[in-house]
Amino acid sequence: MPGQPDLPDPAHADVDSMLSRKFGREVANYFSGSPLNRVSFLRADHGFISKAITHPSTSFLLLNDLAPLTSDPSHLAYANHDDVRKLIGNNPFEKTEQEMISAYNSSITLPLVLFLGLDETKKDGFEHGIYSGTPFFAIDVTPKGSVEKEAQSVIEEMKKRGLAFAEGRLNMTLNAPEAAIFAQARALTDWNARNPFCGGCGQPTLSINAGTKRVCPPTDIASLPTVQGGATTTEATPRQREACVTRKGISNLSFPRTDPTVIMAVVSHDGKRVLLGRQKRWPPHWYSTLAGFCEPAESVEEAVRREVWEESGVLLGRVVIHSTQPWPYPANLMIGAIGQALPDGEKIHLEHDPELEDAKWVEIDEIEEALRVGTSGLGEAAGSEYKEGGLRLPPATAIANQLLRAVVGGFLDAGETSKI
Amino acid sequence: MPGQPDLPDPAHADVDSMLSRKFGREVANYFSGSPLNRVSFLRADHGFISKAITHPSTSFLLLNDLAPLTSDPSHLAYANHDDVRKLIGNNPFEKTEQEMISAYNSSITLPLVLFLGLDETKKDGFEHGIYSGTPFFAIDVTPKGSVEKEAQSVIEEMKKRGLAFAEGRLNMTLNAPEAAIFAQARALTDWNARNPFCGGCGQPTLSINAGTKRVCPPTDIASLPTVQGGATTTEATPRQREACVTRKGISNLSFPRTDPTVIMAVVSHDGKRVLLGRQKRWPPHWYSTLAGFCEPAESVEEAVRREVWEESGVLLGRVVIHSTQPWPYPANLMIGAIGQALPDGEKIHLEHDPELEDAKWVEIDEIEEALRVGTSGLGEAAGSEYKEGGLRLPPATAIANQLLRAVVGGFLDAGETSKI
Ligand SMILES: [Zn+2]
Ligand SMILES: [Zn+2]
Repeated sequence: MPGQPDLPDPAHADVDSMLSRKFGREVANYFSGSPLNRVSFLRADHGFISKAITHPSTSFLLLNDLAPLTSDPSHLAYANHDDVRKLIGNNPFEKTEQEMISAYNSSITLPLVLFLGLDETKKDGFEHGIYSGTPFFAIDVTPKGSVEKEAQSVIEEMKKRGLAFAEGRLNMTLNAPEAAIFAQARALTDWNARNPFCGGCGQPTLSINAGTKRVCPPTDIASLPTVQGGATTTEATPRQREACVTRKGISNLSFPRTDPTVIMAVVSHDGKRVLLGRQKRWPPHWYSTLAGFCEPAESVEEAVRREVWEESGVLLGRVVIHSTQPWPYPANLMIGAIGQALPDGEKIHLEHDPELEDAKWVEIDEIEEALRVGTSGLGEAAGSEYKEGGLRLPPATAIANQLLRAVVGGFLDAGETSKI
Repeated sequence: MPGQPDLPDPAHADVDSMLSRKFGREVANYFSGSPLNRVSFLRADHGFISKAITHPSTSFLLLNDLAPLTSDPSHLAYANHDDVRKLIGNNPFEKTEQEMISAYNSSITLPLVLFLGLDETKKDGFEHGIYSGTPFFAIDVTPKGSVEKEAQSVIEEMKKRGLAFAEGRLNMTLNAPEAAIFAQARALTDWNARNPFCGGCGQPTLSINAGTKRVCPPTDIASLPTVQGGATTTEATPRQREACVTRKGISNLSFPRTDPTVIMAVVSHDGKRVLLGRQKRWPPHWYSTLAGFCEPAESVEEAVRREVWEESGVLLGRVVIHSTQPWPYPANLMIGAIGQALPDGEKIHLEHDPELEDAKWVEIDEIEEALRVGTSGLGEAAGSEYKEGGLRLPPATAIANQLLRAVVGGFLDAGETSKI
């Protein structure tokens, strides 16, 4: 039987405000709710980042092939500066960014070192101007390139301590605050690993801004075979690289990619039924809300109506956005909405875009019961009260579940706000 | 004096529903509201796309260096199949996608031909199964590569007809439905032009799925100089290219990129004032709402709170998402929110991330007056009722304006919905 999933605390849920009175308290979805202040404007501050990475209080989250170091399924484990020095050196931010770009050498592997933020609740002595707290970094320890051995050695040392790089696609057993830290580390590590080359010119790129930007350097000092008096030697003078458009002005190619997606609880025009769909590979009786990617130049509201029509044939009128969930597999932002069918738009047609094996309208009562007894992760069994044949739904860590809770709890009812 | 901007009709605003009764009618922002059905699932349907591109009713929107062909500042102009045949050939989709990938030749420039969708309100004889309407395509006619002359010739012919490729960064004088068509065409044309190389391996890529996907072909038949008996000749046998991770499974690198951004009207805890900020380069007295990019693995609500704190020092509690706006410069999705300050979080501090020249709290009455007399595009004069020194704000085509309208109109007031 699955345990109760840990969920983030909604930010400032205790503070009364006009918005919370009208719209209910904010829903904080799993993978959001990070305890870290990203202080994003300090990533390019050479003095700050050099001081943070060498501070004795600093916590390093290690990812091996995107699997995070953990002490048990609910908790991340952290290394300290001593543990990672052999891999990253004493201070990988010793040079300024401009110096790093000038010294770019495509034949050397620089392990990704990613600044995550400050935990301002922990005051372990790190201070920089008005900012203080424990610095958090992530390091990609996947053995590769010119630092393969050093990375392997860090991994072995961690395993000797009884720590494990947690396998599995979804680390949804992690406690909520650390799930958010992991999500940030995973999304950015994956983006860096996935984009070693420049989409604009095809040449290799360099990580700067403490892991949150990749640039296309104008020169490369990688050793080039040169012919001197008949003998082949190498020299380390910077070679000019081909021109690249990303070096002129600001290009989105230099920044991490996040793919907006829509996921929506669709309610019948009378408000008494909800549209659910299922994919073929899911367990029997398992359904969820519909979902899909936003396309270029469409609003979220349009994307919701388009995806619902394409997948189910149902036509929607008003769409309201409910809450959002970061989803680091690999880099999605799930925008959760609630939409209502047009009076004559409820007929189901699955053959436009045949992504779903089935879609059906389900009475609110049945959804309410399934939220009580039939939720679980995709690979898990339902709870003990579940009766075979009953509707099964995603767990509370999924925004699909939270959208259905909102509908059942009275989100659509005038004058009322979500009760559960 | 600026004219009244054209805005999209909110979808099904006339249909009464529980959601519209509780939340008011949907706000449709400029650049949304496309009249086209994207029928996205038909893009890879070889029979459909071949038939659509050669149909006499089909409309082709031409973009030259991203500037759309127009008949006047309010209207796009369209070419037909005859006009573009010399550039794209009779049917650029003659081969199946698998055949296109096998025949990939990096030395030949294939002009981007982009399927936009069907205008189902126009029944000019195009039908495919249960789908009908006028097909719309966009074509990148920027003169380049092996088709430079042919592209130049198409451009000259259009100019002879008195049509113009509209200059200027923002084509916000276009009528609303065509602005949405242009936004889709611009965002996708730009994405293709910006990503000629694979970020995973650095090799050139090929456009498929009628302009909505780029793949990294495993072979290339570009003429390679080969040595045969001392003479250099060329041969057209496919050369194996280097391995690429994007060929295994699905990679987001193959799909268009859309960058989620947040933009927010921030209200004081008592609901009587709104936080506005200004950048140095703006005209005097011009202010707007705060905005910024979503970061990897943060919810929209978190991004709103982070950006407001980083730019202004103000601390927010509850955040509610209001509406969204596609923004094709180059590929943003603006997610508009309304947030309320914490009781003790209203102090302005501009020095965290010094992006703003100023930020200030403005009384609701002053906002209301500025929405009436002080709105305009950045480069335009305010209306005739505007008095020098008064607050100036973005035009109704900007989501910032719509968010302020919502606040002034009672968005936060319990039991009421937006009045303007
Ligand atoms: Zn480049
Ligand atoms: Zn590739």
